[in-house]
Amino acid sequence: MTDSTPDPKDFRPEARAPRGFADKRASQIAAERRLITAVSKVYEDFGFEALQTSAFEYADALGKFLPDADRPNVGVFAVEDDDDQWMALRYDHTAPLARFAAQNWDGLPKPFRRYAFGPVWRNEKPGPGRLREFMQCDADTVGTDRPEADAEIIALAVAGFKAAGLPAGSTVLKINNRKLLNGLLNSLGVVDAGQQMGVLRAIDKLDRLGLTGVELLLGGGRKDESGDFTKGANLNDAAIAAVLAFVAAGNAERSVVLDRLAAVLANSPEGMSGLEDLSRIGATLNGLGVGEADAIFDPSIVRGLEYYTGAVFEAELLLETRDEKGELVKFGSVGGGGRYDDLVARFTGERVPATGFSFGVSRLAAALALTEGGKAAPVRGPVVIIAFSDSDMGEYFKLASEIRAAGIPAEVYLGRSGMKAQMKYADRRLSPAVAMIGGDELANGTVTIKDLDLGREMAAEISDNKAWREGRPGQVTLPRQDAINHLKTIIKSS
Amino acid sequence: MTDSTPDPKDFRPEARAPRGFADKRASQIAAERRLITAVSKVYEDFGFEALQTSAFEYADALGKFLPDADRPNVGVFAVEDDDDQWMALRYDHTAPLARFAAQNWDGLPKPFRRYAFGPVWRNEKPGPGRLREFMQCDADTVGTDRPEADAEIIALAVAGFKAAGLPAGSTVLKINNRKLLNGLLNSLGVVDAGQQMGVLRAIDKLDRLGLTGVELLLGGGRKDESGDFTKGANLNDAAIAAVLAFVAAGNAERSVVLDRLAAVLANSPEGMSGLEDLSRIGATLNGLGVGEADAIFDPSIVRGLEYYTGAVFEAELLLETRDEKGELVKFGSVGGGGRYDDLVARFTGERVPATGFSFGVSRLAAALALTEGGKAAPVRGPVVIIAFSDSDMGEYFKLASEIRAAGIPAEVYLGRSGMKAQMKYADRRLSPAVAMIGGDELANGTVTIKDLDLGREMAAEISDNKAWREGRPGQVTLPRQDAINHLKTIIKSS
Repeated sequence: MTDSTPDPKDFRPEARAPRGFADKRASQIAAERRLITAVSKVYEDFGFEALQTSAFEYADALGKFLPDADRPNVGVFAVEDDDDQWMALRYDHTAPLARFAAQNWDGLPKPFRRYAFGPVWRNEKPGPGRLREFMQCDADTVGTDRPEADAEIIALAVAGFKAAGLPAGSTVLKINNRKLLNGLLNSLGVVDAGQQMGVLRAIDKLDRLGLTGVELLLGGGRKDESGDFTKGANLNDAAIAAVLAFVAAGNAERSVVLDRLAAVLANSPEGMSGLEDLSRIGATLNGLGVGEADAIFDPSIVRGLEYYTGAVFEAELLLETRDEKGELVKFGSVGGGGRYDDLVARFTGERVPATGFSFGVSRLAAALALTEGGKAAPVRGPVVIIAFSDSDMGEYFKLASEIRAAGIPAEVYLGRSGMKAQMKYADRRLSPAVAMIGGDELANGTVTIKDLDLGREMAAEISDNKAWREGRPGQVTLPRQDAINHLKTIIKSS
Repeated sequence: MTDSTPDPKDFRPEARAPRGFADKRASQIAAERRLITAVSKVYEDFGFEALQTSAFEYADALGKFLPDADRPNVGVFAVEDDDDQWMALRYDHTAPLARFAAQNWDGLPKPFRRYAFGPVWRNEKPGPGRLREFMQCDADTVGTDRPEADAEIIALAVAGFKAAGLPAGSTVLKINNRKLLNGLLNSLGVVDAGQQMGVLRAIDKLDRLGLTGVELLLGGGRKDESGDFTKGANLNDAAIAAVLAFVAAGNAERSVVLDRLAAVLANSPEGMSGLEDLSRIGATLNGLGVGEADAIFDPSIVRGLEYYTGAVFEAELLLETRDEKGELVKFGSVGGGGRYDDLVARFTGERVPATGFSFGVSRLAAALALTEGGKAAPVRGPVVIIAFSDSDMGEYFKLASEIRAAGIPAEVYLGRSGMKAQMKYADRRLSPAVAMIGGDELANGTVTIKDLDLGREMAAEISDNKAWREGRPGQVTLPRQDAINHLKTIIKSS
């Protein structure tokens, strides 16, 4: 501490969430919870078992980096334990799975299918819409090299999106295989790592730049509208034509894409082996009833170059939204995955084939809210029992218990403010109704119920303040049991 | 890195979870999830809304310590952000609530009722059964000093334990009020902080040492069986008698305890004010129908001395278990809470009264498992479809889809091993049945179902290996739709 530090007793910290971290309120929590429940159900139906690893892993097990005494915190949040070992918060669910599988391999049913959900943490520069803590929900199969396992993961993702409530046709799973790309590059004699990367980067831009843009990037280079020049991969004309034919093979029925790719890759054993895998994925998708619109073969999908070893998947959300300026914005990727056969080998030295998919829960919940009109459905509050008098609190609590016993959330107002503040409180909680027991009600064994939704509606129509007070819109006084039945009716229609 | 560090490419980390952290498998996850769902439902019925703060808080906001450049990691896991601010993982849900409430006070419905669940992290020495990451589930009411709010929290905890499935009578909520202890000490003229602490520590031992032990600790001191001597609080005889009368006032109906305590505390205004609070808590518990056996007044409860300012609660599990040596072990505390009126003021300078309760979810889940025979109920696996032939995989997947469409979890075996390994796999997954389509079944449109539970039962009775193979216990071949109906019957009875 420096000398200017104030006396700890007088120190008042500023109340603020850390940079890049956010609090979640009831409606957002409810939306994410519905989503996770629905997707977990699908995973379990497909035979995947739940696994929950701890937030921390040893940094060396995370695989992203070896602990570097000078920069332990690059990309992840890391702390040094008191035995001098560095631990870091997980940045995805796959690295912890690889560690778990390597640690427990002998005792696991094999192939090992597991799903996991929970927050992951990334120590990155936060920005608008880019948090450093977010939810992911993953399913992975470890211990099989069958393309059918990839297909099952794809079917799972498609079923997950449906179960989550996304309208049919709003997502598409795009499937590629790393072997196709490798086969293509090798058959064209592109063996220089830098040039290979240039070709893959060009292919990755198909979505944004179209075939013409990709063609420029495969050749001499491309100047964009702002005048910035991107160097090209410098392929010769024949190679450019082959890559363009490869990339353009998409956008058709799965079997047609396979035929087109077979023509391009005929001379590449690795490419043809990748096609054989894709073909078996296609057959399995057919067996599982996954429609052509839900899962397509797209040779332009390039992702996780250092990570995936075979099939790669990307889930694209086709919904569009408008930004603050009214411009159309594509929602883009809401999940992805692929085959990673090298991850467990980091620990054991033995290659253990694995494949998986990860849902971006937070993005997906935002997308779902979009389909429902812009934001998560608000969560209704409880019935609020007005607190008139300290001496009758026992009666209020008894009524609250009776209402709850009828299956309706209820609470006694517990502040010390008057009637107006209590009504405002019920309003803020989005309560469907308030219940009142004043002196008359106590004497007569009745309860007065005020329907707040109805009250709000009628308030819009009554302009005269006096008429409003006298009319007591939506307010009725009933014998106790009838009052609870009346509440049930109100809740049902709210 | 030292010179002996191997080439990163050859480095093989050991696959192990960090010290004090544990992986959770399906049955434990299911038990915790059931518990959280049940308790959350109770919270929402009582009008509490969900809130989820991020894993990190600024260290200064956590309140436990001011960031100390030399020891940032004492008690919590802390990292320094790249803007030089220290952040730490939450060690409970209360400190983040205080920060959230201070930050958003103007926009909140008041009193603000919220519940939260999730992991908390403590950077402590791990030990057997003591993890550094565990689940807590909290409910708190912020912004009211009413004793009724304390009572509601108690009722909530009682209802929570019932909803979680603990047998009636297996938990008891013990309630005390800090003002009683303060009033007692002041009325006895015990003003020295060290002596006050000595008295409170003595009272806290009632459970373990009984009245005789407490008496020794209030006076000159106590030698335990091993010969170790604990210094006493050195009260005079009259004071000792008063403290013992105070402590012995428990163990009776709530109203009787109040009467007994009134006799001891008659001369202490602070004590009598605490009694008035307890009396209103009692009236509210009566209104809410909380039985005498579920919530008792216990003046010997001492907890969170630096933290709680009024009512304190402790939930004790009355179930007993036996340790490895066969000795009876009390399960002890499974939750606690109280009134903390100073926590929000740390930020704002304004006193905001608050009260809450925290369930120890992991301990509670362990306790629940105990009532169910020692461990969490195992999670049943899916129906496994045997993979005989690569060329028929499409048929297997079709059958899997049909079984799932009937609401039964199902999967195709995706390894490359033979029949025996596949049966072993289904066994390890605790699958209720396997489904087989071989050549005959394909030709006849049938499916063969093997009831694994029945098979296991019959296997125990058949000793002759040949008779076993020929009898095919629990195995039937049926037309496709009948086979699925047969699976339903098996699942129902499993």
